[in-house]
Amino acid sequence: MQEKHKVKCYIRKHTQEAVVLLRRLVQECSVSGSESRAQAIVIEKLREMGLDLDIWEPDIEELKEHPYFISAREHFQGSPNVVGILKGVGGGKSMIVNGHIDVVPEGDIRSWSIDPYGGEVKEGKLYGRGATDMKGGNVALLLAIEAIKNTGVTLKGDIYFQSVIEEESGGAGTLATILRGYRADGVIIPEPTNLKFFVKQQGSMWFRIKVKGKVAHGGTRYEGVSAIEKSMLVLKAIEQLERRRNEQIQDPLYDGIPIPIPINVGTIKGGTWPSSVADLVILEGRLGVAPNEKMEDAQAQLAKMLSQLQDEWLQVNPPELEWFGARWVPGTIEHNHPLVQTLITNYAEVTSLAPIIEAAPWGTDGGLFTQVSGIPMIVFGPGETKVAHYPDEYIDLEQIWIAAETIACALLDWCGVQESEGVYESEHIL
Amino acid sequence: MQEKHKVKCYIRKHTQEAVVLLRRLVQECSVSGSESRAQAIVIEKLREMGLDLDIWEPDIEELKEHPYFISAREHFQGSPNVVGILKGVGGGKSMIVNGHIDVVPEGDIRSWSIDPYGGEVKEGKLYGRGATDMKGGNVALLLAIEAIKNTGVTLKGDIYFQSVIEEESGGAGTLATILRGYRADGVIIPEPTNLKFFVKQQGSMWFRIKVKGKVAHGGTRYEGVSAIEKSMLVLKAIEQLERRRNEQIQDPLYDGIPIPIPINVGTIKGGTWPSSVADLVILEGRLGVAPNEKMEDAQAQLAKMLSQLQDEWLQVNPPELEWFGARWVPGTIEHNHPLVQTLITNYAEVTSLAPIIEAAPWGTDGGLFTQVSGIPMIVFGPGETKVAHYPDEYIDLEQIWIAAETIACALLDWCGVQESEGVYESEHIL
Repeated sequence: MQEKHKVKCYIRKHTQEAVVLLRRLVQECSVSGSESRAQAIVIEKLREMGLDLDIWEPDIEELKEHPYFISAREHFQGSPNVVGILKGVGGGKSMIVNGHIDVVPEGDIRSWSIDPYGGEVKEGKLYGRGATDMKGGNVALLLAIEAIKNTGVTLKGDIYFQSVIEEESGGAGTLATILRGYRADGVIIPEPTNLKFFVKQQGSMWFRIKVKGKVAHGGTRYEGVSAIEKSMLVLKAIEQLERRRNEQIQDPLYDGIPIPIPINVGTIKGGTWPSSVADLVILEGRLGVAPNEKMEDAQAQLAKMLSQLQDEWLQVNPPELEWFGARWVPGTIEHNHPLVQTLITNYAEVTSLAPIIEAAPWGTDGGLFTQVSGIPMIVFGPGETKVAHYPDEYIDLEQIWIAAETIACALLDWCGVQESEGVYESEHIL
Repeated sequence: MQEKHKVKCYIRKHTQEAVVLLRRLVQECSVSGSESRAQAIVIEKLREMGLDLDIWEPDIEELKEHPYFISAREHFQGSPNVVGILKGVGGGKSMIVNGHIDVVPEGDIRSWSIDPYGGEVKEGKLYGRGATDMKGGNVALLLAIEAIKNTGVTLKGDIYFQSVIEEESGGAGTLATILRGYRADGVIIPEPTNLKFFVKQQGSMWFRIKVKGKVAHGGTRYEGVSAIEKSMLVLKAIEQLERRRNEQIQDPLYDGIPIPIPINVGTIKGGTWPSSVADLVILEGRLGVAPNEKMEDAQAQLAKMLSQLQDEWLQVNPPELEWFGARWVPGTIEHNHPLVQTLITNYAEVTSLAPIIEAAPWGTDGGLFTQVSGIPMIVFGPGETKVAHYPDEYIDLEQIWIAAETIACALLDWCGVQESEGVYESEHIL
C-alpha cells in the first residue's frame, strides 16, 4: 500500500521534531494533580495537526457513582483530559488510541544520575521521569496520526487520540472518557511493552493494612506489643499468599515471568518515637489480579489471609484492611482477534522481526475498555517496563519510531483508506 | 526528729495546692522545644518559696564541645533550664534534686480516653502526658523543699532544685547544669520508680539504620530489591543481638526483668508509592546499655552485627548506621552507699514498708551525674514506669506525697539541721 510507505517516510523525516516534543513533555513534571502544563503541550500539538479537540476536567461527583471509580483526589480541577478527534469519511472501523499523561513521582533524587525532568538525550536515548511510562508512547501516537494527516491520507473510520490523567492511580481519566461517551471498535494503548504485544494484562488494586500493637516505653518494651514486630508476620503471610496465588497461574504466556501476579508492599510506616514501642504500622501495596480473575475474589483472598494469621495477638487484634487510591481492571484479548493480527502483521512488515506475544506483568487503563465498554484492547508500545518507575528512566528513541510506524500502518488497515482523488503533494511531507 | 514530723505534717496539709500545681504543669504540653510555659510555672513557684533563682537558655555551641552532648535541636532559645537554690548555713552535705520538665509527644490521640493535656483527677489519680514522667516527681521535690522552707527548718548543706529540659532526648539540659558548674555531694532524681530504689540504671542511645533496596515497578517487583523485605532481616538480626546481649546480664537485681537492656526499634518508614518496590527503609530505635558497659562497646556490637548480615544483597549494600538524637549514660551506685541508706531508712519510717531495691529498666539523666561529675546518684520517685510514654498516662497522687515525705526527711538527714534558736511558729504550717 502506497500510503503506508508515505506515512513511514513522514515519520522517519520528522523524528527530530518528535524528540523536541518528547523532551518538552518530560520537562513538565506531570504527577497526579499537576498534569495541566503537559496537557497544554499536547493540546498545542493537536491544534497544529488540525484535530477536533475535546478538553474537560472530569466531574468527580459523576465518577463516584461508577463502581470502578477510585481516587484519593477530591476534585480534578486543573487536571484536564484531552481528546483529539480525526474524523473519517465513514464506512471504516474506528480506533481509540490512549495514553496517560501522569507520571509517578521521581522518588529519592539522590538515586538519579541525571535531572529527572531534564529530558536529556544521550546515545539515542531520552532520559527522565515519564520518558518510558508513557510520554514516549504518547509521542509515537501523535507522530503516527500526524503522519496520516499530513501525508493527505483520508481514513474511513475515526481515530480518537486520548491523553488521560490518573492512570498511575487507577484510571479515573480513562473512566471519564468512557462516561463521556467515547466508544470505538478497538483500542491501542502504547504503554512500554518493549515492542511486544501484551494480550493479557494483570489487574491490580491498592490496599492499606493497619497492624496494631500496644505502646510502651522502649526500656520496658516487653510490656508493650510492637506493631513493627507484628507487621513482620503480616509481611511473611503476604509472601506466602503471593506464592499460593502465583502457583495457580498455568497460562504458558506467563512462563518467562517469575511472579505473574505479584503482591507488592510498597510503603511501610509506623511508630512515632525511637524509644517507644510502636502501636501502629501502616503497610500500603498493590495486589496483582490475574487476567481472568474477578477483582472481588482477589480481595477476598487477602482479607481471609489477614483473618487467619497464626498469632495470638493478631487473632485478637486482626489487622484492618482497606482498598484505596488505585485499581486497574485486568484485561484479555484472543490471539487471533483482528486487532491483534492487524498490529502484528504491520510490526513484522516494519521491522522484519517476528512479533512477540506476551502477558503483561502489570495493569493499564485497558481493563476499563474491555470490562466496562466491551471494546477489544491491546497494549503495544515503545520502552522497557524495567525502567518505568525507576531512577534514570529512559526510552530508546528508535523504539518510538518503530511503534509510530507500526501503529500508523495498523490504523490505515483498521480504519480503511479512502482512495484519493487528487495528486499527492510531496512537499507536504518534507 | 521533731523537724521530720513538721515537714511531714506540712506536706499532708498542702496536698491540695500541690494537685493544682501538678495539673497546671500537665496542662502545658512541654514537648521538646515547648518547655517555656511549664518552666514559667516552676519559676513562679520557686519565687513564691523564696529560693535563689538561676534561669538560662543552654548555649548549644558550648554543649557541642562535650563528648556526651547529643541533640537534634539547633538551639535552645525559648527552652530555659531553671535552678532554685536553698542555701544552707554551712557544715552539711549538699544535694542536687533533679527532674526534667520535657515530656514525650502524646502519640495517636485516638488511643487516649481522656484529654492528654487536661490534668483530670479521678479516684486519687491525676491523668495526662507527663503526669508520671515526670511532673509528679517534680511536684514531690517542690513540695518537699517548700515544707522544709516553710516550717522554718534551717539546713546546713545546700539544696539545688533543677528543672531541666531535654531529658527525653538525651540529657542536654542536665549536661548544661554540669557545664554551668553545679556540683553537690549527692543527687536524687524522682523519675517514676513506683517508689522503688533504682541503684543501677540502663543507659541507652538512639540509632538510625538505613536499609537500601532497588526500586522497580510493583508489577515486576522481582526486578527490584525490596528494602522492606530486607529490613525484616535487619529486624530479625536486631532481635538476635538483643538476646545475646541480655544473656550476658547476670546481676541478680535484673532477675525479675524479662529483658534488662532492650533494643527497641520504635519507628519504621520506607517506600514512596504502593505499586513501586521500596528502595529505602529507615529504622529508628534505642539500644539499651548495661550499667557497667561502655557506650562505645555497645555501639560497636550493633555496627558489627550490621556488617555481618547473612544476605547477599545486604553484604554488598550494608545498612548505614547513625547515632542521633538522644543518649543516656548508664549509672550505678553501691547498695550500702550513705545516699541509698539515707533514703531507704526514711522511706521505711514514712511508709512502714520494706524498701525495694531494683535496677532501672531505663535510663535517666542520672548517668551524666555519675559519669561526668562523679556524684553519687539514686533514682527514686512516684508513678509507675508502665504508664510513662503511654496513652492515658496517670499518677497515683498518694505516691507523690510519700515521695515528698521521704525526700524531705532524707534531705534533713543528708544536709543536716541547724538547731533553731527561736521558737517554732506553728501558724506558718497551717
